[in-house]
Amino acid sequence: MTTPGEDPTALDRSNPEAEIALRAEAYRNWGRWGADDVLGTLNFIDETKRAAAARLATTGRVISLSQSFDMNGPQNGWRRRTNPVHTMLDTGTDAERGSQGFPHGIGGADDIIAMPLQCSTQWDGLGHIFDHGMAWNGRRAGDVVTSDGDLVTGIEHAASVIVSRGVLLDLGRHLAPDSAELPDGYAITAADLDACARAQGESSAVGRGDIVLVRTGQLARVCRLGWGEYAGGPAPGLSLATAGWLHGTEIAAIATDTWGFEVRPNEFDVPAFQPLNQVVIPNIGLTVGEMWDLEELGAHCASTGRYEFLLSAPPLPITGAVGSPVNPVAIF
Amino acid sequence: MTTPGEDPTALDRSNPEAEIALRAEAYRNWGRWGADDVLGTLNFIDETKRAAAARLATTGRVISLSQSFDMNGPQNGWRRRTNPVHTMLDTGTDAERGSQGFPHGIGGADDIIAMPLQCSTQWDGLGHIFDHGMAWNGRRAGDVVTSDGDLVTGIEHAASVIVSRGVLLDLGRHLAPDSAELPDGYAITAADLDACARAQGESSAVGRGDIVLVRTGQLARVCRLGWGEYAGGPAPGLSLATAGWLHGTEIAAIATDTWGFEVRPNEFDVPAFQPLNQVVIPNIGLTVGEMWDLEELGAHCASTGRYEFLLSAPPLPITGAVGSPVNPVAIF
Amino acid sequence: MTTPGEDPTALDRSNPEAEIALRAEAYRNWGRWGADDVLGTLNFIDETKRAAAARLATTGRVISLSQSFDMNGPQNGWRRRTNPVHTMLDTGTDAERGSQGFPHGIGGADDIIAMPLQCSTQWDGLGHIFDHGMAWNGRRAGDVVTSDGDLVTGIEHAASVIVSRGVLLDLGRHLAPDSAELPDGYAITAADLDACARAQGESSAVGRGDIVLVRTGQLARVCRLGWGEYAGGPAPGLSLATAGWLHGTEIAAIATDTWGFEVRPNEFDVPAFQPLNQVVIPNIGLTVGEMWDLEELGAHCASTGRYEFLLSAPPLPITGAVGSPVNPVAIF
Amino acid sequence: MTTPGEDPTALDRSNPEAEIALRAEAYRNWGRWGADDVLGTLNFIDETKRAAAARLATTGRVISLSQSFDMNGPQNGWRRRTNPVHTMLDTGTDAERGSQGFPHGIGGADDIIAMPLQCSTQWDGLGHIFDHGMAWNGRRAGDVVTSDGDLVTGIEHAASVIVSRGVLLDLGRHLAPDSAELPDGYAITAADLDACARAQGESSAVGRGDIVLVRTGQLARVCRLGWGEYAGGPAPGLSLATAGWLHGTEIAAIATDTWGFEVRPNEFDVPAFQPLNQVVIPNIGLTVGEMWDLEELGAHCASTGRYEFLLSAPPLPITGAVGSPVNPVAIF
Repeated sequence: MTTPGEDPTALDRSNPEAEIALRAEAYRNWGRWGADDVLGTLNFIDETKRAAAARLATTGRVISLSQSFDMNGPQNGWRRRTNPVHTMLDTGTDAERGSQGFPHGIGGADDIIAMPLQCSTQWDGLGHIFDHGMAWNGRRAGDVVTSDGDLVTGIEHAASVIVSRGVLLDLGRHLAPDSAELPDGYAITAADLDACARAQGESSAVGRGDIVLVRTGQLARVCRLGWGEYAGGPAPGLSLATAGWLHGTEIAAIATDTWGFEVRPNEFDVPAFQPLNQVVIPNIGLTVGEMWDLEELGAHCASTGRYEFLLSAPPLPITGAVGSPVNPVAIF
Repeated sequence: MTTPGEDPTALDRSNPEAEIALRAEAYRNWGRWGADDVLGTLNFIDETKRAAAARLATTGRVISLSQSFDMNGPQNGWRRRTNPVHTMLDTGTDAERGSQGFPHGIGGADDIIAMPLQCSTQWDGLGHIFDHGMAWNGRRAGDVVTSDGDLVTGIEHAASVIVSRGVLLDLGRHLAPDSAELPDGYAITAADLDACARAQGESSAVGRGDIVLVRTGQLARVCRLGWGEYAGGPAPGLSLATAGWLHGTEIAAIATDTWGFEVRPNEFDVPAFQPLNQVVIPNIGLTVGEMWDLEELGAHCASTGRYEFLLSAPPLPITGAVGSPVNPVAIF
Repeated sequence: MTTPGEDPTALDRSNPEAEIALRAEAYRNWGRWGADDVLGTLNFIDETKRAAAARLATTGRVISLSQSFDMNGPQNGWRRRTNPVHTMLDTGTDAERGSQGFPHGIGGADDIIAMPLQCSTQWDGLGHIFDHGMAWNGRRAGDVVTSDGDLVTGIEHAASVIVSRGVLLDLGRHLAPDSAELPDGYAITAADLDACARAQGESSAVGRGDIVLVRTGQLARVCRLGWGEYAGGPAPGLSLATAGWLHGTEIAAIATDTWGFEVRPNEFDVPAFQPLNQVVIPNIGLTVGEMWDLEELGAHCASTGRYEFLLSAPPLPITGAVGSPVNPVAIF
Repeated sequence: MTTPGEDPTALDRSNPEAEIALRAEAYRNWGRWGADDVLGTLNFIDETKRAAAARLATTGRVISLSQSFDMNGPQNGWRRRTNPVHTMLDTGTDAERGSQGFPHGIGGADDIIAMPLQCSTQWDGLGHIFDHGMAWNGRRAGDVVTSDGDLVTGIEHAASVIVSRGVLLDLGRHLAPDSAELPDGYAITAADLDACARAQGESSAVGRGDIVLVRTGQLARVCRLGWGEYAGGPAPGLSLATAGWLHGTEIAAIATDTWGFEVRPNEFDVPAFQPLNQVVIPNIGLTVGEMWDLEELGAHCASTGRYEFLLSAPPLPITGAVGSPVNPVAIF
């Protein structure tokens, strides 16, 4: 078997299927944690890892890495992904007017939300992407995710898992010191990731069980200019050729400030769609976060020179979900 | 002004409005953190507090305190509160069959959820309860929460705040050593809380900025027997007479394993509804968590004798929400 | 091939699959209206039929045949079917208080609904039921209904079709003159249907293109006693042995006042589920209505002796839906 | 009191409040049908009217007047109005694969919808618009529509009412014979309406109890060019100066093929919003339909020269709704 290259310019841009297959086979972790595994690379997080991560929380400063959940989001209806619709079941207006029928002057407000689980800051579960009809660990996609949800690898299995050391790789600041923003279409390479980690200093070393956060700066741009095609359009992101890095570092999870984690347009001259996702989710078993807000974090890390922290980002245990909205917090 | 008593048997069971008003006036924190405050007692959490809390995380053990979010929940439709409805936008069955129209063998699953924000494990925001038409900090309820949501104290303001020291007070085990479950209708008193903390040992001391978790054991019972009237029916919980304790300890937040935090039926012989909520949310500015799953936590604390931990429980920043689903994690 | 019998007592109660297959084969209409057909027996309605039906509307009396759409419905969460959740986007309380930000004193109220399409009074589309993986007209189920909805026979195709002669067969009054209610579990036979039509008189003759409404009286009972198991529990309804009648009469559609149209428990001693639906929807191509409110209609027909009327019951053209809520009106 | 003029050019474009008030006072029907009235001008429809309307249905031709309900709609999120989100609870793909767990080869598909009630073809209920905090018949808006919905004039009250004579006034064809489309911003006058009716011939006479459908042609344009600002942007529509015509004709209801029924931009040089709605809904008690698809109807009427028909357009009886999606059918 050919070892897949890490050079994006060497990709055969006419043959996504072959480039994907090469990496899927080379980096496939099926069976690595047993036939019943439901966590994939989250298994790299153990209690020792977490205890060490907790020791990074020395100042008590907390930074939320979540975008807002509201109608002013980037979703445009693609595949029925809308922005969150939040409505009230009871209001203060009613309560103040005395319309609620409660005794002794008590009043209340309640609310309800309808939202795609992939609408804003989220974790993708292992059942989110399939490769030729196969899901994580070599299961048939139709045995895993039916209309009843993910019957096997639902996001609820990660409810008490995703707390570990977080490391920010601020590719925006590293590669574009002036703007701190990578241009849309920029394909981040494994070499870029390593160079960024080196340049940021020793707090940025990446290893087993880490949750790596890659800031591209695209979110800063769209916050300034308007959402535009943030959801599904051109974006900076990881090159397909980083699959080996994502596998070899033994990181537990990765998240970015973009819609789809990998570079867009995808790196092919023929129709292609999220080839890196196709390699890493069902084959490597990597948990992927998207649409995280890394702006305040990036500024904080840049000012302190410290890029590691305790990251607490447990998903909501929505039974059978293939993803979850999340408010990740970096604790320094 | 009379100092409100801490003895539940001394409550005038014919006059909830007076008993509430007595405590609302005695413990009202309006203006304590300025006219613009949107956090209430969460202000008691500062970075020093959090840094100390982080030092409690020494083993790396994480326990999720969230119930499942699915149709098998306790909601019965009261005030249109349903259980979460999770449906799929794309499935593995479709992907495996090749029905999705994507190139190079990629397939995907997406999902959507509709849920009341108070349906399962949640934080109530400061806009959730009103007292005689007034919201937290002395604002008119109708100026705060309209059909557009909580325009002032929305839960998003707490997105990077709710990380602090957590303390479990396992009243179930303390008061009912055999079953570890308090009976429905049992009114937990301030004396009970103090005695429990003392009995549990020094790791249970409660003070400023703590997030106190009160385990009654009711959830264990309904998990065994069926939901029954868990949502809104009889339950163990805090007595109205604990309002002074909740105020005086300067805790940042409190959460229980019950639907409504306080004892039910409420402690009056005339129609009454959640009088303690009426005192603590709009008047004290206390953030309240409900329907938390404290079973694994209770067992762990009992077995280790250690009742304090780093608690990370940031709400989803749903703009204008009066509550948020949450997956709180206790990190030991 | 054996001709299926019309006597329910002759069904082999140990072998639903065989009894279903016998009728599916005998009455299958696949190809009858061409390979591209999306309407099934609705094709029996033509303009001549409708013009004749319109001539039945002589008095101008209109009776709605719809149950209410609200939280006080029968759904219990089975297969995630909830009752409709109706919430407000804007309210009169807000408008009166002047909180809406509109000029010159205008105010508004808007609302939103979330509901399963099978939650209350509805038409089932032809994609609602499959027989051994096959849908109406011999298509593979997976070619017809994916996560994207019914790509072929969606309910929108019937948007301008379902207006025809309606005929009420009031089996409740016919078979139970005292109570006007059939007991749960009563299996209505073809002989019952014919006898009822005869007894009701000449306005009840059933023929090609008619929409037959079968009143059992169960809805009256549950409105009196509480919903109980109306959604999915025991009910009077059509026997599997009526499949031949449903086919031979060449009716366009049928609707009942019950949850599932056919008798429940189903007529087998081994596990069975809606065998008549399995025969009539994918094989005969019959459009089926359920949970209609036939109470006022029954009383009106009984008092006038006239059981035929113009029925206007077009579904909402929800693209790709396998059913639609509907407010059918009988126009006399 | 000044009689309001019917000439749009005479409107004081600097004073919407006065122009609205003038018409609100002149045409207010409060009390006309008693203090408890919940139907407004729908009261003009009686059984005699309907019986006459039914006699217009002579050919059996049915034309649906509903737009599709799907994600490809015009909504853009304004005031949280989204397009309908239709998702599947069960699919044919699952059924064909045998994943559903049902016996004897039966399979099923179910679905669910979430939609604003004003998202597509709809009736506005009488609780949809308020005038200076007052609702239809002189009730305080906050007494009528709270977070619990329209407690008084909910759309369910019209469930068996809205069947009457329909009359199409095809202003598009009348005023723009070449394109059959009025330009955006064209204010239709009372004189236009009368002239159109006269030009169309005797089948177009408008009178008490009629449901008038005004075709502007805008829908044809946006179907050709894309939705653009169909939802809330410029549009042809009725002038505020038609309020007298709408009152004096004693029509039961009116519907158009536009988002908001009246001309937009509104006819003022200062901020204004839907002034005609403010006059006709809360003051006249007129039921208004919007976003109807009058294209096939317009072509049919033009080709036959016949502009009257039996219109069956009963709303879904959604309890407490201030509007309802509807599939209106014209029966010729």
